[in-house]
Amino acid sequence: MFKIDHLGIAVKSVATAKAFYEKLGLLVSAEEVVPAEQVNLVMAVVGESRLELLEPTTEDSTIAKFIAKRGEGLHHVALQVPDLASAVARLKNDGVRLVSDEVKIGAGGHRYVFVHPSSAGGVLIELVEG
Amino acid sequence: MFKIDHLGIAVKSVATAKAFYEKLGLLVSAEEVVPAEQVNLVMAVVGESRLELLEPTTEDSTIAKFIAKRGEGLHHVALQVPDLASAVARLKNDGVRLVSDEVKIGAGGHRYVFVHPSSAGGVLIELVEG
Repeated sequence: MFKIDHLGIAVKSVATAKAFYEKLGLLVSAEEVVPAEQVNLVMAVVGESRLELLEPTTEDSTIAKFIAKRGEGLHHVALQVPDLASAVARLKNDGVRLVSDEVKIGAGGHRYVFVHPSSAGGVLIELVEG
Repeated sequence: MFKIDHLGIAVKSVATAKAFYEKLGLLVSAEEVVPAEQVNLVMAVVGESRLELLEPTTEDSTIAKFIAKRGEGLHHVALQVPDLASAVARLKNDGVRLVSDEVKIGAGGHRYVFVHPSSAGGVLIELVEG
């Protein structure tokens, strides 16, 4: 099924971001450090989607570099698609640029691939299967 | 009910963006010119949300200026909240900066307000009621 799985948002402080989304009335998870990604994150549930608020824990992490270059803001949009392998095959066939050509397997076993922003209107798009 | 109502994405060409999202398997609307916003837009339905792909039709439009400054990419995130007036009251009470203090009424009668990116982790957030 298609849906927006999550929006990854790079922030300087998850505590500040958490307070803002709680004021909106959203349920926000407790802070969780993810050493592999060098981030401290919280998740806010919004309908069938989530906001993933990402604060860098090191200066050379992907998120820290993003904030240094672009400032805080949206880092990526994760779209859930029903058949990832066939979507990837169609995209490659049409010359769409992927960040990595292989489908990767993340924490919890979910399968994902990133489409390069140059092929997707400036947006870093993560495709996940579901 | 809370949900991501839509993501507003600034693109140089809706035709190119439409082709990309159709390759993903999404249903994308025909192009529609909206003179009031100086954009040519298409909508892609993604579960309970939509991607609103916005191509500027004039060089001095909001979207053209955004692209000139930041490049193509996410322009705003619209969140649907169940009670807009009380959400706005809570935000103002906590010193959150809104782009305009008044709730506005848009096409089709929907009520909306924009939260300034400086108060929302660098993301321009539109709140709509629903």
